[in-house]
Amino acid sequence: MKVEFSLEELVSLTRASSVTGSASGPATGIASLKQAGPGDLSFLTHRRYQPELEASKAGFVFVPEGFEYAGKPGQVVLRVASPNDAITSLCRKLETLLWPRPAPGVHPTAFVDPRAEIHPDATIGAKCVVEAGATVGSRTVLEAGVVFGRNSSVGPDSWLGYNVTVYPECSIGARVRLHSGVVVGADGYGYEFSQGRHAKVPQVGTVVIEDDVEIGANSCIDRARFGATVVGQGTKVDNLVQIAHNCRVGKHCILVAQVAIAGSTTLGDYVMVGGQAGLAGHIEIGAGSKIAGQSGVAHDLPPKSYVMGSPAIEALKDQKFQMMRQRVPELLRRIEALERRLPESGH
Amino acid sequence: MKVEFSLEELVSLTRASSVTGSASGPATGIASLKQAGPGDLSFLTHRRYQPELEASKAGFVFVPEGFEYAGKPGQVVLRVASPNDAITSLCRKLETLLWPRPAPGVHPTAFVDPRAEIHPDATIGAKCVVEAGATVGSRTVLEAGVVFGRNSSVGPDSWLGYNVTVYPECSIGARVRLHSGVVVGADGYGYEFSQGRHAKVPQVGTVVIEDDVEIGANSCIDRARFGATVVGQGTKVDNLVQIAHNCRVGKHCILVAQVAIAGSTTLGDYVMVGGQAGLAGHIEIGAGSKIAGQSGVAHDLPPKSYVMGSPAIEALKDQKFQMMRQRVPELLRRIEALERRLPESGH
Amino acid sequence: MKVEFSLEELVSLTRASSVTGSASGPATGIASLKQAGPGDLSFLTHRRYQPELEASKAGFVFVPEGFEYAGKPGQVVLRVASPNDAITSLCRKLETLLWPRPAPGVHPTAFVDPRAEIHPDATIGAKCVVEAGATVGSRTVLEAGVVFGRNSSVGPDSWLGYNVTVYPECSIGARVRLHSGVVVGADGYGYEFSQGRHAKVPQVGTVVIEDDVEIGANSCIDRARFGATVVGQGTKVDNLVQIAHNCRVGKHCILVAQVAIAGSTTLGDYVMVGGQAGLAGHIEIGAGSKIAGQSGVAHDLPPKSYVMGSPAIEALKDQKFQMMRQRVPELLRRIEALERRLPESGH
Repeated sequence: MKVEFSLEELVSLTRASSVTGSASGPATGIASLKQAGPGDLSFLTHRRYQPELEASKAGFVFVPEGFEYAGKPGQVVLRVASPNDAITSLCRKLETLLWPRPAPGVHPTAFVDPRAEIHPDATIGAKCVVEAGATVGSRTVLEAGVVFGRNSSVGPDSWLGYNVTVYPECSIGARVRLHSGVVVGADGYGYEFSQGRHAKVPQVGTVVIEDDVEIGANSCIDRARFGATVVGQGTKVDNLVQIAHNCRVGKHCILVAQVAIAGSTTLGDYVMVGGQAGLAGHIEIGAGSKIAGQSGVAHDLPPKSYVMGSPAIEALKDQKFQMMRQRVPELLRRIEALERRLPESGH
Repeated sequence: MKVEFSLEELVSLTRASSVTGSASGPATGIASLKQAGPGDLSFLTHRRYQPELEASKAGFVFVPEGFEYAGKPGQVVLRVASPNDAITSLCRKLETLLWPRPAPGVHPTAFVDPRAEIHPDATIGAKCVVEAGATVGSRTVLEAGVVFGRNSSVGPDSWLGYNVTVYPECSIGARVRLHSGVVVGADGYGYEFSQGRHAKVPQVGTVVIEDDVEIGANSCIDRARFGATVVGQGTKVDNLVQIAHNCRVGKHCILVAQVAIAGSTTLGDYVMVGGQAGLAGHIEIGAGSKIAGQSGVAHDLPPKSYVMGSPAIEALKDQKFQMMRQRVPELLRRIEALERRLPESGH
Repeated sequence: MKVEFSLEELVSLTRASSVTGSASGPATGIASLKQAGPGDLSFLTHRRYQPELEASKAGFVFVPEGFEYAGKPGQVVLRVASPNDAITSLCRKLETLLWPRPAPGVHPTAFVDPRAEIHPDATIGAKCVVEAGATVGSRTVLEAGVVFGRNSSVGPDSWLGYNVTVYPECSIGARVRLHSGVVVGADGYGYEFSQGRHAKVPQVGTVVIEDDVEIGANSCIDRARFGATVVGQGTKVDNLVQIAHNCRVGKHCILVAQVAIAGSTTLGDYVMVGGQAGLAGHIEIGAGSKIAGQSGVAHDLPPKSYVMGSPAIEALKDQKFQMMRQRVPELLRRIEALERRLPESGH
């Protein structure tokens, strides 16, 4: 994918209010101030990075309006309301090159059961399998290799990446994005121990992925024992995350990579869970709570909690403990010194 | 999948000993006491949930025989020996709807090498690939998109979910269930460092999955360097679990989501490992041991151990430490107070 | 795969300098000293395993030259410079049986876009999908079920395991090995919170996997927001590892299973990260550093650091704390005893 922006395009796409310096050619890449070379464009997000700006070899830089910076010989300086937004505008343009809208229709190498309903505006990629009774909404794209199970449905404007798997009887909303390797609807992990064996508890519920959810590569959302495992509207899930059966994840939550949530746990809206954190089963996490990375949460949390550590405690308390952690051996030495000076009264 | 149970079906499937109240229509869903509505059936598993029962809007409820509960207007109360078993009976019925037995045979879009042996009662789904020398047992199902490698074998009555991968020369038993994205037989992670490079150590062993094992979505069982990585009979593995080369997991073990076991480690029978726990390589975990979630086990454990924490110690000791964790800063303050009152004798 | 080595082959493949005992047949397996039976060959890697050697039932054993061991009746003892290297030589031989070189060419069931460039010596397996503009180098193998995205490239002598996914516009070098379920180039996890929603930040960069990298099953390497996520030459990544957008992993690094590295973090060369460790975003890990398993690293580390724990501190300090962990309750008791003996002067 060729990145190429003329100075005119840069100005019009980002609505730059002023330009100093002149370009010898188009910008052919986007990079951080540190990594940018003469053909690249870069941007200053905060004045604390001014030293990086001064040292940068970027051929084009976006700086905030009102920021004093003269530029260097051969460097073009563009002033914009928000350099970050300016870069995002350019990236949105590039996105249309990276992901050109595929033609609607079913690829000749896909297998779509005649009892499935594919909207005529949807795209079913090469080698996909769509089973009986499935429905795929308007403008939704299944990239190559997707398997979409019996009677499952996906709404309009959704995107299922290469090799995504959706088990039967699951329900996926509109504008949902599932990345490669995501598995929706595998059996929940439920057994009953009896006579020395783990007997399988049937997992006959479903999964509901609400609108505007995005789920990262190789994450797993298990189907409910009965009822539904729910991922709420607008929630964003990173890679390699585990959401167990009967969980209810609220709206607009953030689950960073490798989080695991055990069965039947409920997250309120706007909960943020840091990477590699683990949540026990059958607990309730109040809306707006923050759970730090690598935490282990075993109990209910009231709304707007902020916890840390394993097992997780109030973040501030954990931080205080953490600051003391390497001094614990010293505590013993000081106690021993005190004991030497204050011998136990013999009797 | 339409859930619909008439009152007669409910009684006959669950062998209810008594029924009070009358139904205006069939039950059309199963839900927890909290979430159930008028069309749903629900169940009381323990008398501590009596308040939820009193508040429940469930149209149908299972309660244990002998439990006093009059029911509400419009609610049907069914008495059974075990409400939990009653629900499981109904779920087993639903399971046959969710997973109707597929017709035996090879889907026309699958590719099966002519040198593979597929039992005539087996089912090979759409877009599957079965390589030369592979054997698939009677009534075993490969769902769509499975890749089954050269000379690997799977016994009768097993089920390989969509997009499962089995590398060459692996051996899978009877009644095994592998969920989507499971990878059986990838190379063990073995290198020798020499002249500034990590040189690959060939991984030419195999994987043996014994009978009645179930493995969750996107879990990985690596092939042995030589010999075999073994997952013992009846063991149940959750999603996103890593079992490294040459591990020997005993029979009837429980490995919860995101557990990782490093190379050549042995687990006795009936070991339970909580979610996100990690086990070092080349250690032995005695039969019947329990390892709490997020633990890190670096050493051998005798049978029936119960450990917790990272690094893992006896669970009780870890719990005692955990209760003290947020008081560590206080310890320092109290030591300082003692020191002020007992100044070091100057000299 | 039949393992079978005659005594003559054993000697010639391993350049054994002396042989004692005579074999009644070929060696038909390789096993550890403990697990080996009469048909197996085994090996002594260190003299501390002499008791295992004495007890071993192996029919063939490799011992180091100069090591005194007479062998048992019916056992063949081979002396070699390095028993470990001897086994590796044999395993390399077995590797050619396990992975016979596939014939070049495109499998008739694969779909290769006519605008892709496949080297005539490359192999494209059954049911693969290769999109427009992709290029596949000489002798590179795509096993069954690989999806290889638009305009992505892979160099010569690489191997992409079954069901690997490569998104568009990624670049993979020579002699790279990607195991099943690996996802290269999924979107980085980037959102901006605005008006109660997480708005997607376009992820239009790429992934560069340099030469001689190996990546384990179901690991994920996200594409950069812009620029590139880079995995440096010779780096070996285990299973289920997460490498987020814009990370730069140096050359010859080791990332053990379930490691997660957050966005824009840089690892110098020869960094080793233990299993399940987590690294925060936007930090720099100096070359040659070691990060213990399950650590949580939140800050920059100078070269050759060795850290442990969550949050990670100098390994030695963490070990000292860990030794004290279960004595923390005792510290409180001893402080209380001191306080009883030294009552606060009342006033």
